[in-house]
Amino acid sequence: MQVTLKDIASIINGKVFGNSELIVSNIAPIENAKSGDISFVANKKYLKYLADTKATAVIIDNFSESYNVAQIVVENPYLAYAKLLTKFTYTPTTFIGVSEKAYLSDSVLIKNRDLVSIFPFVYISENVEIGERTIIHSNVFIGKNVKIGSNCIIHPNVSIYKDCIIKNSVTVHSGTVIGSDGYGYARDGEQHFKIPQIGNVVIEDDVEIGANCTIDRAALNSTIINRGVKIDNLVHIAHNVEIGQNSLIIAQVGISGSSKIGDNVILAGQVGVAGHLKIGNNVIVGAQSGIGRSIDDGSVVSGSPAINHSQWLKWAVKYQDLPELIKRVSKLEKLVSGEKNV
Amino acid sequence: MQVTLKDIASIINGKVFGNSELIVSNIAPIENAKSGDISFVANKKYLKYLADTKATAVIIDNFSESYNVAQIVVENPYLAYAKLLTKFTYTPTTFIGVSEKAYLSDSVLIKNRDLVSIFPFVYISENVEIGERTIIHSNVFIGKNVKIGSNCIIHPNVSIYKDCIIKNSVTVHSGTVIGSDGYGYARDGEQHFKIPQIGNVVIEDDVEIGANCTIDRAALNSTIINRGVKIDNLVHIAHNVEIGQNSLIIAQVGISGSSKIGDNVILAGQVGVAGHLKIGNNVIVGAQSGIGRSIDDGSVVSGSPAINHSQWLKWAVKYQDLPELIKRVSKLEKLVSGEKNV
Amino acid sequence: MQVTLKDIASIINGKVFGNSELIVSNIAPIENAKSGDISFVANKKYLKYLADTKATAVIIDNFSESYNVAQIVVENPYLAYAKLLTKFTYTPTTFIGVSEKAYLSDSVLIKNRDLVSIFPFVYISENVEIGERTIIHSNVFIGKNVKIGSNCIIHPNVSIYKDCIIKNSVTVHSGTVIGSDGYGYARDGEQHFKIPQIGNVVIEDDVEIGANCTIDRAALNSTIINRGVKIDNLVHIAHNVEIGQNSLIIAQVGISGSSKIGDNVILAGQVGVAGHLKIGNNVIVGAQSGIGRSIDDGSVVSGSPAINHSQWLKWAVKYQDLPELIKRVSKLEKLVSGEKNV
Repeated sequence: MQVTLKDIASIINGKVFGNSELIVSNIAPIENAKSGDISFVANKKYLKYLADTKATAVIIDNFSESYNVAQIVVENPYLAYAKLLTKFTYTPTTFIGVSEKAYLSDSVLIKNRDLVSIFPFVYISENVEIGERTIIHSNVFIGKNVKIGSNCIIHPNVSIYKDCIIKNSVTVHSGTVIGSDGYGYARDGEQHFKIPQIGNVVIEDDVEIGANCTIDRAALNSTIINRGVKIDNLVHIAHNVEIGQNSLIIAQVGISGSSKIGDNVILAGQVGVAGHLKIGNNVIVGAQSGIGRSIDDGSVVSGSPAINHSQWLKWAVKYQDLPELIKRVSKLEKLVSGEKNV
Repeated sequence: MQVTLKDIASIINGKVFGNSELIVSNIAPIENAKSGDISFVANKKYLKYLADTKATAVIIDNFSESYNVAQIVVENPYLAYAKLLTKFTYTPTTFIGVSEKAYLSDSVLIKNRDLVSIFPFVYISENVEIGERTIIHSNVFIGKNVKIGSNCIIHPNVSIYKDCIIKNSVTVHSGTVIGSDGYGYARDGEQHFKIPQIGNVVIEDDVEIGANCTIDRAALNSTIINRGVKIDNLVHIAHNVEIGQNSLIIAQVGISGSSKIGDNVILAGQVGVAGHLKIGNNVIVGAQSGIGRSIDDGSVVSGSPAINHSQWLKWAVKYQDLPELIKRVSKLEKLVSGEKNV
Repeated sequence: MQVTLKDIASIINGKVFGNSELIVSNIAPIENAKSGDISFVANKKYLKYLADTKATAVIIDNFSESYNVAQIVVENPYLAYAKLLTKFTYTPTTFIGVSEKAYLSDSVLIKNRDLVSIFPFVYISENVEIGERTIIHSNVFIGKNVKIGSNCIIHPNVSIYKDCIIKNSVTVHSGTVIGSDGYGYARDGEQHFKIPQIGNVVIEDDVEIGANCTIDRAALNSTIINRGVKIDNLVHIAHNVEIGQNSLIIAQVGISGSSKIGDNVILAGQVGVAGHLKIGNNVIVGAQSGIGRSIDDGSVVSGSPAINHSQWLKWAVKYQDLPELIKRVSKLEKLVSGEKNV
């Protein structure tokens, strides 16, 4: 990478303040950027590094005369950085075709065997369909009747159970399990009688799923992850859950059976959602919260059980005062009863 | 499936109210059942769908004249539904024998090679024994001296470390790890000296273990999962834990070393149990609770740290009032001290 | 194992009280030790077993005349037990070389093919380097340019993405994923634009990582696990995190992006750490705590959000009194206002 600021500005639709012929050769974080680097400030708390930065240029949302560094001003510096990085780290994919060391059932349907990569030790069951430009890394298991679209990346050691549907441009990271049985048993005296889990999982376009997640198949019908959802690592999604478009599910979240999560929702790390609930659109749930009731559109909640986030913030800074408060109340009671007894 | 209500009633030991010669061809949830479907109501909150359902028949625990749908009355509709679904989704297993693409050590002992399925890319170490009608899916690892009984299903990408014992009719879902080293170190100055973990894991009959769980081997002796236990996904069970019969361990629970969980216990999602504790029989622990002390038989607890559940419920609806309460107490203090100073 | 107490004392640097020619043949827990066993007491609450133990000898930190059992006195009985067990369970490793059923790219560099074990169905990508006496178990995936040092054990079904560096004497348990993409997206209208994750993971010497963990690669630079860190199962470590030497990260902990954990820290089970924080050296965080701000060296904290541990302990035993306290305050208010109204 050897690019002028002028060219960068044209890629990210920005305006250069400074010498637009300067050349940068690397993208680096502002804290340790060197001469020749371009960096970015997407968060006010990093502005403090600008005075002394050795970076050749910085992407920022407002020009400031106070800094001695060339600036490229854009509306969203983080997005501009992401696009720039994507452009300069892009390498065209070479497809390896179907490895002789993979096992494919005879009935597997691959649209174009030259335009896929199926690595050694992949096991693909009967009647599976795989689209173009899809990569299945080593040691992946794909069950019967699974359909995987085009431009997907299935990382090593993923398991996809029978009947699941994965559409286009979906990435699944290593160790994730899609379509394992939902957790359903009926009491039969002292014992638990297994409810057959005969539904599937449907994953729509542009979904990314992190490592070691588990997404259970529906009991009947489908567990559904809608378009554009991004799931972090070690997330559990139970049977018959549906997650709305573009929602963000952060690491170690657990969502219980049949709950419906709206569009553009954020569930922060380690959140738990009970079963059969409805979380509205644009809801934000703080880390470690416990959701035991349905939540209206646009709500911001925290705590276990979750309450209004601003109310939770007030509690959070005060809860340690409870033991002292109890003493204060006891003292008041003595005072007041003493007065009454006078 | 094309069955008369009369035949269904005889399968699930129920009584038909309506035309027992009606034929149903599908099982569907009550919310979206169509003509020709049989459905069930196991939860009062779904009764509202009965007035307008298009289902041909419904399984229910009490006959009601108010609904226009044929009814089959049983004691436990959910169990009846489970048994019906099991009967109609049952397909006899065809065993593939031992795949040539699997690796089996010479000393592996398989009772009947025609009555097992061992899929490609399975690795089976020395002195392993495998019973009849057991299925080992692709990419599974089985360590030395492991014994697996009959009628087991080991899903893809499972790892079972050496010396572990899995009895009969056990199902293990993908990605689960059984017998990894317990987490044990002795301080040696600044460093941690590893305690050899030389025990094993024993899993009794009729246990089902979800996806991506971890069950550590004992330091000495055995980590034990007793008969009929059902474990959800992403559950962590540490070394030397024992879980009693028919207990239910919901997703993302973590149980620390040497704790003993009783029979028929329910640990709801994301519960944490500290080490060296005893949780009695028939205990129920609410979601996200933290157990830091032993719990008596039959207790119902919630919260972190866990308290009596009914007490926790009272706290849960009031805790957000604490900041306001502090203000009220301050005001009272002023009032009371003011009066005193008058 | 058939060893005299004299020999054991010399191994663990202890002093025998009793007949130093007695022979022991097994190591067992004090609760169920039999004649011929040697046991240990590392925790005062196990002293009660000493009066009636059938063990031939016990390792202990203080000699007591009250017990009828031979005693070997050392400074740290738990460490002595660990070292003894290690010595007597040690079996020299036989290396199998490189299995013909593994797949290795031509450019893989293995220092000494006779001094490694690479099991069937392992996939090793281009330009990987592997040191001496390292064991790669079956169904492991190793990405391009990965470097693994000597004396490492990589258990089955582990995935190590490209460019990651694993130094010497590192153990990684089954199902763990190292180097999966960090969770980073920039908002682009309603959608999320993926930030390329072009850094790596560096794991220093003597680290042990449990089963089914996820350690994400850095966005830029490295996610770093420093020397001697011990990580339990199902732990999530996000991109650009650094964990200081000899820290202990217990099961199901989640650490968000860019947070720096100091040396000798203990994060107990199910702790969550928010992003961009600094946890000082020697910090201890109680189980299930939520860390939302940086923590000073040497602090002991608990709770969600975390507060001083001793303060949390006071809260923990009192929080259930809140509903009653609210009633008491209401009563006081009535009393006080009543008096005023008199």
